Amino acid sequence: MPTILGQNQYGKAENRVVRITRDGDTHHIKDLNVSVALSGDMEEVHYSGSNANVLPTDTTKNTVYAFAKQYGIESAEQFGIHLARHFVTGQEPIHRARIRIEEYAWERIETSDGNSGFLGAEDVKHSFVRKGQETRVTQITYDGEKWEVISGLKDLVVMNSTNSEFWGYVKDTYTTLQEAYDRILATQVSGRWRFNWTDDAQKMPDWEKSYEQVRKHMLQAFAETYSLSLQQTLYQMGARIIDNRAEIDEVRFSLPNKHHFLVDLEPFGLKNDNEVYFAADRPYGLIEATILREGVEPRIPVDMTNL
Amino acid sequence: MPTILGQNQYGKAENRVVRITRDGDTHHIKDLNVSVALSGDMEEVHYSGSNANVLPTDTTKNTVYAFAKQYGIESAEQFGIHLARHFVTGQEPIHRARIRIEEYAWERIETSDGNSGFLGAEDVKHSFVRKGQETRVTQITYDGEKWEVISGLKDLVVMNSTNSEFWGYVKDTYTTLQEAYDRILATQVSGRWRFNWTDDAQKMPDWEKSYEQVRKHMLQAFAETYSLSLQQTLYQMGARIIDNRAEIDEVRFSLPNKHHFLVDLEPFGLKNDNEVYFAADRPYGLIEATILREGVEPRIPVDMTNL
Amino acid sequence: MPTILGQNQYGKAENRVVRITRDGDTHHIKDLNVSVALSGDMEEVHYSGSNANVLPTDTTKNTVYAFAKQYGIESAEQFGIHLARHFVTGQEPIHRARIRIEEYAWERIETSDGNSGFLGAEDVKHSFVRKGQETRVTQITYDGEKWEVISGLKDLVVMNSTNSEFWGYVKDTYTTLQEAYDRILATQVSGRWRFNWTDDAQKMPDWEKSYEQVRKHMLQAFAETYSLSLQQTLYQMGARIIDNRAEIDEVRFSLPNKHHFLVDLEPFGLKNDNEVYFAADRPYGLIEATILREGVEPRIPVDMTNL
Amino acid sequence: MPTILGQNQYGKAENRVVRITRDGDTHHIKDLNVSVALSGDMEEVHYSGSNANVLPTDTTKNTVYAFAKQYGIESAEQFGIHLARHFVTGQEPIHRARIRIEEYAWERIETSDGNSGFLGAEDVKHSFVRKGQETRVTQITYDGEKWEVISGLKDLVVMNSTNSEFWGYVKDTYTTLQEAYDRILATQVSGRWRFNWTDDAQKMPDWEKSYEQVRKHMLQAFAETYSLSLQQTLYQMGARIIDNRAEIDEVRFSLPNKHHFLVDLEPFGLKNDNEVYFAADRPYGLIEATILREGVEPRIPVDMTNL
Repeated sequence: MPTILGQNQYGKAENRVVRITRDGDTHHIKDLNVSVALSGDMEEVHYSGSNANVLPTDTTKNTVYAFAKQYGIESAEQFGIHLARHFVTGQEPIHRARIRIEEYAWERIETSDGNSGFLGAEDVKHSFVRKGQETRVTQITYDGEKWEVISGLKDLVVMNSTNSEFWGYVKDTYTTLQEAYDRILATQVSGRWRFNWTDDAQKMPDWEKSYEQVRKHMLQAFAETYSLSLQQTLYQMGARIIDNRAEIDEVRFSLPNKHHFLVDLEPFGLKNDNEVYFAADRPYGLIEATILREGVEPRIPVDMTNL
Repeated sequence: MPTILGQNQYGKAENRVVRITRDGDTHHIKDLNVSVALSGDMEEVHYSGSNANVLPTDTTKNTVYAFAKQYGIESAEQFGIHLARHFVTGQEPIHRARIRIEEYAWERIETSDGNSGFLGAEDVKHSFVRKGQETRVTQITYDGEKWEVISGLKDLVVMNSTNSEFWGYVKDTYTTLQEAYDRILATQVSGRWRFNWTDDAQKMPDWEKSYEQVRKHMLQAFAETYSLSLQQTLYQMGARIIDNRAEIDEVRFSLPNKHHFLVDLEPFGLKNDNEVYFAADRPYGLIEATILREGVEPRIPVDMTNL
Repeated sequence: MPTILGQNQYGKAENRVVRITRDGDTHHIKDLNVSVALSGDMEEVHYSGSNANVLPTDTTKNTVYAFAKQYGIESAEQFGIHLARHFVTGQEPIHRARIRIEEYAWERIETSDGNSGFLGAEDVKHSFVRKGQETRVTQITYDGEKWEVISGLKDLVVMNSTNSEFWGYVKDTYTTLQEAYDRILATQVSGRWRFNWTDDAQKMPDWEKSYEQVRKHMLQAFAETYSLSLQQTLYQMGARIIDNRAEIDEVRFSLPNKHHFLVDLEPFGLKNDNEVYFAADRPYGLIEATILREGVEPRIPVDMTNL
Repeated sequence: MPTILGQNQYGKAENRVVRITRDGDTHHIKDLNVSVALSGDMEEVHYSGSNANVLPTDTTKNTVYAFAKQYGIESAEQFGIHLARHFVTGQEPIHRARIRIEEYAWERIETSDGNSGFLGAEDVKHSFVRKGQETRVTQITYDGEKWEVISGLKDLVVMNSTNSEFWGYVKDTYTTLQEAYDRILATQVSGRWRFNWTDDAQKMPDWEKSYEQVRKHMLQAFAETYSLSLQQTLYQMGARIIDNRAEIDEVRFSLPNKHHFLVDLEPFGLKNDNEVYFAADRPYGLIEATILREGVEPRIPVDMTNL
């Protein structure tokens, strides 16, 4: 046979698990979408169809739900670590597990001024509204020795309505763009950051606090950077995270430039003084880059949008 | 010719307009998606292709942008009223205009503890993050005499993690469902409400305040209702709005029952005490109903999800 | 109580059923997405939460699968008729059933020149590729006496690369569009057609043949019409169906004008002789109309895109 | 500064270009979605915002449209090669270009039995219906010396309604799955294949013929393989391509196992003899693997779904 098997992995993708924790009348939610991918001694199932080394994807699904009961879900990262360790240490033929998790945030419905005919406001500690905004993500990879944790977010839409310029660029035969000295800068942030926690012997980061802080620094860098190009803003967002968060060594962003074009109102005798914009869909500029702590090797893949 | 023309309408759909208002350094955003549909003496364009009565859809687009400059965007409703009046009164062959608007909310990026190297936190009054959560909608219809305004929202996901039961239902040959005495109740709210403002002679509602209040009452009714069926919760949500908001006479909801099934963990020797749920996609229960102020005729269409 | 209940309906939506029929080694597929909506004596469940008249949505789901076995799926229309009749005649409190069905078409994978090491080509009569292209839809409504069947399709994308013009339109203050004498006409067809079969005493149409013929006439009318406006093309598409299909009395189309803008290549010293187009997303013209057999009352709703 | 810049790239994404070629009255369409990503000496724009080395993304868009006129679009691959060569050889600071293209297929509307009142059937050579089914993709990468061409497809849905089994797998504490001896095997194929053409000195493959042949072999392998696991089917699909197409050295598939669960009809006194299935959405098994010609190094990334 002139062909051979290369990289391969399998598992159950998109297991939707909601975990309720009851603290008296006060409930807490964790709402995750968990995908399992396992690798190891899997040549035979590809060559002959023998499943002798194959733990069914259905079993990986069951494990997600059982672990949500047994360990609870302290954080997406911690939950993924439990799962990855189980698969790699529990099955001889499995040498590597990669757990990807999406997390959807919820906030409480306020009823403090409620005039309910059914229940007093003090009773309503089990009602939630989905936060919308970004989806939090994480990817945990374990090979039995080392951990790799890459967390991040996607679909966080931000805009600066001023303090953005674009000029002084290369002009070739096909250049028609006019220079801009006050434009809208808007993007839908997809970002990933890699932790330098790789070993059970190290102290584990506080995953929940880390996420909140990274998000805050990233947003502040976006807001506070006077931008001469989206590349510059992107770099500031990454550098701010690494400067402020010792647990993180590498950041990668994929930032679509969500163009807001100033509408030409002159044909109607109107002056558009940076007031009325057309929000375009396609095409869009796409700016992608990795920012690294000095001396560190990059490990986040170039195409990370599926994480 | 054995065929004739029935109801027809045309216009430019999904004009994405972003309006920035500068109040000194402090910027404000209105971010809308505006669709125009016009009707009137349009037989000839259908029968022969003569465009003599047709204002181009491109012109309706231009009008949206020009009006955003000329009138500003105080609220989606007010903006739609300006547009509808213009088309009906401005063109003889146009007898009716229907303006549909989606609105995306933004909130400010907080930089109060910012340690920027570029700008002081006090300077950052032009930075925003899209709120996510629901999309606000409105539909304004005008025939030259009467107004109809139906506002609402879609894609607001809510959950009660307890205080929901379902039992005592009809059982036929095909019934296998077990009765439930403590279940999750979750839905993705699509709601519309009709204002009793129909005439220029009436005092116009405060559209922005009305929206905030309707949303609040609706969420509180969802949270505070001890539910024996999603129909009961739906009715309470609508009744609460009409009881509290004199400007509204009719409400309609389309509520998918986003099933959260308790996972059977017994095969693994675990007890699932309302802790671990599978969030299902399809199929889903779908509960739809109109709630009316007594004595009022219904006008919101049965299928309103496209509004 | 100052509020009352208006129109309401409930049921299980989006039941995905695949029915395989084995004719010896040759298999046949029907692949449907079935949504059930029931109405009747349902005041009490909304007012008090009593489910005494409520057949669970879960039961309506079970019925879909059981009927797929008991009756097979001859056509989506015939299957919906079985279901609607069952719900209305089987449960006293249910007075009306509306069944909506989406159908996905499959075609056989050809293996006639196959060089398989496993099976001879003649054995492969159970392999299919999903056709893509349009989704076929139908809606069956039954109130115990009369039937209403509205069938149709959505997401069928068509294009004429010439034989389309647009000129001679109204020009107002906001008109900037240039007249066009040779343009691309492209649209994503959403169409619905109503059958005049309403009574069990009438001979039932051949639903499968009717669909194929309507689709053919509609496409031919699109291709063969020299178009002075999309309205004219739309009308021809509807009229052609009614002229050719005696079983259909009413047609409604919702046709987005998928703009293909001629790209201005003059800045690069190039002439664009109707060769290079930018396919735009938003905004788009939206043309909607009903075409009726003379003397017939319209019954297809204005907003039918959810059917 | 403790941070440094890692891998980075930028350009205009999703340029939608439609190219019409007129061969007398007979028109031909190429319908592409082209994304440009450029890399090179781009440190400064990230560090200081200086755009002195930056060709605007808007210029890369213009180039796509100008090249569609200048070179035509013989195939997506050939078009991408023209673009990549231009960017790398035309601008000193640009060292590498990656062009990604999606292609949408169209087929002619048949009017051979047309009874048009406007045009004879023989005139209609400019009318098309979008084929639906898969999206064809390609990625061309050029660094000034070597080419890498990876082509493929996504969203091709296929099903075998028999000749699939799954048994003999590992069983652990969390395994509940029953073995299956006759099941539906369905998947939505995402596949990529790498050409061994890397140098201008080599004879270029016939890109159009290659695509048609790869697709055919892949579908036949899917249909003809009696499957004991989706991994086995996947491997056969890849091996068949490499065995038959000398121009291809590596194939990678990402195959979601689109579960079709046999519905339990026993509660209703019915026997389900592999006739009625529930088509599930989530979760799904996900099987991914690379198949290589012996002796070849793998280059297709593990996560290739965005290509």
